[in-house]
Amino acid sequence: MADLTSILHRLDRDARDGDDWGEVARYIPELAEVNPAQFAISVALADGRLLEAGDCDVPFSVQSITKVFTLAIALGRSGDQLWTRVGREPSGRAFNSIVQLEQEDGRPRNPFINAGAIVTTDEVLGRRQPREALGEIISFVRAAAGSEDIFINDAVAASETAYGHRNFALAHFLASRDNLRNTPEKVLGTYFHHCALEMTTGQLAMAGRFLVDGPAMPQLVSPRRIRRLNALMLTCGHYDGSGDFAYRVGIPGKSGVGGGILAIVPGQASIAVWSPGLNRYGNSHKGTEALARLTTRMNWTIF
Amino acid sequence: MADLTSILHRLDRDARDGDDWGEVARYIPELAEVNPAQFAISVALADGRLLEAGDCDVPFSVQSITKVFTLAIALGRSGDQLWTRVGREPSGRAFNSIVQLEQEDGRPRNPFINAGAIVTTDEVLGRRQPREALGEIISFVRAAAGSEDIFINDAVAASETAYGHRNFALAHFLASRDNLRNTPEKVLGTYFHHCALEMTTGQLAMAGRFLVDGPAMPQLVSPRRIRRLNALMLTCGHYDGSGDFAYRVGIPGKSGVGGGILAIVPGQASIAVWSPGLNRYGNSHKGTEALARLTTRMNWTIF
Amino acid sequence: MADLTSILHRLDRDARDGDDWGEVARYIPELAEVNPAQFAISVALADGRLLEAGDCDVPFSVQSITKVFTLAIALGRSGDQLWTRVGREPSGRAFNSIVQLEQEDGRPRNPFINAGAIVTTDEVLGRRQPREALGEIISFVRAAAGSEDIFINDAVAASETAYGHRNFALAHFLASRDNLRNTPEKVLGTYFHHCALEMTTGQLAMAGRFLVDGPAMPQLVSPRRIRRLNALMLTCGHYDGSGDFAYRVGIPGKSGVGGGILAIVPGQASIAVWSPGLNRYGNSHKGTEALARLTTRMNWTIF
Amino acid sequence: MADLTSILHRLDRDARDGDDWGEVARYIPELAEVNPAQFAISVALADGRLLEAGDCDVPFSVQSITKVFTLAIALGRSGDQLWTRVGREPSGRAFNSIVQLEQEDGRPRNPFINAGAIVTTDEVLGRRQPREALGEIISFVRAAAGSEDIFINDAVAASETAYGHRNFALAHFLASRDNLRNTPEKVLGTYFHHCALEMTTGQLAMAGRFLVDGPAMPQLVSPRRIRRLNALMLTCGHYDGSGDFAYRVGIPGKSGVGGGILAIVPGQASIAVWSPGLNRYGNSHKGTEALARLTTRMNWTIF
Repeated sequence: MADLTSILHRLDRDARDGDDWGEVARYIPELAEVNPAQFAISVALADGRLLEAGDCDVPFSVQSITKVFTLAIALGRSGDQLWTRVGREPSGRAFNSIVQLEQEDGRPRNPFINAGAIVTTDEVLGRRQPREALGEIISFVRAAAGSEDIFINDAVAASETAYGHRNFALAHFLASRDNLRNTPEKVLGTYFHHCALEMTTGQLAMAGRFLVDGPAMPQLVSPRRIRRLNALMLTCGHYDGSGDFAYRVGIPGKSGVGGGILAIVPGQASIAVWSPGLNRYGNSHKGTEALARLTTRMNWTIF
Repeated sequence: MADLTSILHRLDRDARDGDDWGEVARYIPELAEVNPAQFAISVALADGRLLEAGDCDVPFSVQSITKVFTLAIALGRSGDQLWTRVGREPSGRAFNSIVQLEQEDGRPRNPFINAGAIVTTDEVLGRRQPREALGEIISFVRAAAGSEDIFINDAVAASETAYGHRNFALAHFLASRDNLRNTPEKVLGTYFHHCALEMTTGQLAMAGRFLVDGPAMPQLVSPRRIRRLNALMLTCGHYDGSGDFAYRVGIPGKSGVGGGILAIVPGQASIAVWSPGLNRYGNSHKGTEALARLTTRMNWTIF
Repeated sequence: MADLTSILHRLDRDARDGDDWGEVARYIPELAEVNPAQFAISVALADGRLLEAGDCDVPFSVQSITKVFTLAIALGRSGDQLWTRVGREPSGRAFNSIVQLEQEDGRPRNPFINAGAIVTTDEVLGRRQPREALGEIISFVRAAAGSEDIFINDAVAASETAYGHRNFALAHFLASRDNLRNTPEKVLGTYFHHCALEMTTGQLAMAGRFLVDGPAMPQLVSPRRIRRLNALMLTCGHYDGSGDFAYRVGIPGKSGVGGGILAIVPGQASIAVWSPGLNRYGNSHKGTEALARLTTRMNWTIF
Repeated sequence: MADLTSILHRLDRDARDGDDWGEVARYIPELAEVNPAQFAISVALADGRLLEAGDCDVPFSVQSITKVFTLAIALGRSGDQLWTRVGREPSGRAFNSIVQLEQEDGRPRNPFINAGAIVTTDEVLGRRQPREALGEIISFVRAAAGSEDIFINDAVAASETAYGHRNFALAHFLASRDNLRNTPEKVLGTYFHHCALEMTTGQLAMAGRFLVDGPAMPQLVSPRRIRRLNALMLTCGHYDGSGDFAYRVGIPGKSGVGGGILAIVPGQASIAVWSPGLNRYGNSHKGTEALARLTTRMNWTIF
């Protein structure tokens, strides 16, 4: 694995070479003010080792990547019942589109677009208070990562709430189609908070190990569910750029608007990459490039 | 005018003949519980007379018909500036569609679909409190109708708020595109209340006289603006059934989901009809039929 | 009427004053090569007189304005049966959009968008050969105009055919939904030819007189149908700019991509205006402006 | 492998047990008249063996499955240049939708929806005659299958042409956006013929081996391209049911409206299944079920 270590350092150097870091998300000040010229990559291997390069000690806002964890929890609570409320198909639309929601009568296309994740959060919430549900989500993430040092950034959650009109529109639309059990305010309070979780790439790579079916990995969900979560990440994990990610990177992944990507090599590795500048699909620009090179070099592909 | 009186009574008898009253709106209990087998028609003539037939003493929820009054007030306050925030084109969509709003980047197609009327209400509100803006709206309607006996039904307004997720979705979407100056809660509080105004057909026909350019009519807006309001009512006043209404009835009109329609014969008459059962476009079924017959019999057409 | 004559000459001078003539249509060479800096206006009055100003002796390609004549013929042949195949609602879309056709299952929104006019042409065609149908259309136009000196420009028709992929797409889509009786090739052959009719504004204003219900006018359709054709022109005659035209000009009209507009003052006048540069809706830029001023000055409005 | 053989026979028996065979495609008589109560499955293993069960000797119309072969040929001819003309994203729409084509300005979302496959066929055609291009396609398929006994059914191709208005609409639309180099007639002539190829499941499973990267397999494309073709099959191979197929079956696959599915277990097997009745996405109903069971039993998944 000296080889993988040197590949990671090479990816880090290459990332810092080019000038085009992409554009950071601008919709809340906490994301808009992040310096785009940062890069980190961490790989948690099936044998238990964690290899890293770059700005690995900088916590970042994981944002939509938490949708993987909340989906796992929602499936644990409700099983296949969840699929009566949300679909499993790629959307062919932007992450926050409301058009499709109207056309498909209030059933979001998949759990990784915002509307779908709001439904998933409502399912995790159940009849509980947001505090309890958030407690379960954080506990799940910490258990997966094997670290207690993971927290929600309250300032980010507050900004998301203040600037979250589009998500309020989605939630009220879902409510108007009878696809929310709790009030939009309660669901979004929970949603904005779990999206505001912060982790380093090392913590995120460790947390992603529950999606790698291997003996040394935390057994938080069944092997069968692992496969299905990976299938959803592959087809729907990068919004309207999912097909391109599958074509070029070739493994399941889930991106967040904070510039992080969690990617899984089934049976072998959990990878976290972070660079805050985004490409036109809203996914990390340098992060995607680095993953494409890494999977090519390591011959890590599911195809 | 003995002739017109007898035509109105004939329309009333004919309306009660057929069994198909259409379906009343079901989204709030106050509308769902209205007996569909009711019909009233009132005509306020340029010479000052009011002729009526049917259930003319039953107040009903005018709902979207208030969009005409709030548009007149908004144009009075802001003039053509308003058109930077809302368009003047027929929508080709249902009254509460959010699809077009996303496709056209947050600028509603016209002031008579819900999204457009929410913007208009925001303009009427300005920097005032809802109470003040509602005071102006009620004063305008009462002055137009020449009657102080017109009130808001608070139970209807409360129900609209409780069941108004679709309108909250529209308002939050508008806010996300920077097309609201006040909070969604404040704008919708005002919107739901002015939609909850109740009038009899007699009061509504009288109130509509400000849209008839004639010497005996209340001069609340300029003749030029009257023409333009009538043009908008003709092209956009019946949602996705506006073309059909123009084709069959042939005069400007604005319908409400409570089953009322206000229609204008330029220079001659203001007509109010009411029958709570709706056709597939969400416009009064028997009311539309009666208007089509009335304009044919009286040769009242703008074409 | 010295007054009207001087107004027309003033409109002509004003049109030539401004630099912004708009953009001519570019999709076929015959239209792309027209000099945009031309303007003509003709008014045929109910008393039989024809008043004109500008380039009144220049024949231009009337294009979509023929949709009014073919609709009149189709209604004469089939009556209200036609409405099972085509709607009467504004489209809220561009003139050649195929999106709505798919969403509404092959029934065009109205007879004035391309898809609707293709259906209307199919209805006019019936079981006849294109030559016969075209003969009827030309005869109708010549009878309306009171002039035999009106012809089809074969070069324009040939170019439309050569560059007409979008219309072929529409026609094949209609066929796939069983809404064509003849082959796409046969219908479009007829369609492209009648759109290639050429007239001067004087001829067009004369031809439009059949839409003015008056004693000196050619009685080609019933008064009732006149009103309905006018209603359709008002709500649908300017594609996605119909609402704006109704608001600003205030009378029924139908535009063509060649820069012509036919507008009707019910009971009083038929107006033809021409200036080949188009605005963003694809309607004559200077022509629309001139009509707005003319109707304001003459107080010609239906509202 | 006795085990796999018995699993296949079990799948065949199970398929014949249930009554719900789904609906056969109805748009051309040749498909509409196929008996739905048929089932066949064949597996070509990396070690060279072919295991089968059911109606393995019945040739069926492979239809859209040829899109995989023509895509491989087009990429061989043009490389990544192809992606300037067609995308790589799931469509979220039906296989023959024209809506998205208009919204995305004539660039089909992916090569496996009809519009995309028409572009791919245009690329394979290049400047050649249809006969030459079809010759190359058949040669490729025969070489992949190791069988000369594979033919085009001319009656099917003729019916597709006769009933192919929707595809003509797509092709003309592409031409109107300058995304066809040949005429719609020429491209569709080629397209309809290669879709009319007939194979047994045994032949199709053998032909699919070029997508399995293994020593005993025909090396028709590079290992890198194999991976990318598999990625596209996974994200886009089942139209609007691609996400569901990935979730339930877990391997790349491409379906055809004739009821066939070609599915690939990377490095291990090429599977062909056939049952002509379709589910609501237009994919083989019993075929999909059988594949889901097979991959579960064999633990064949890429995730």
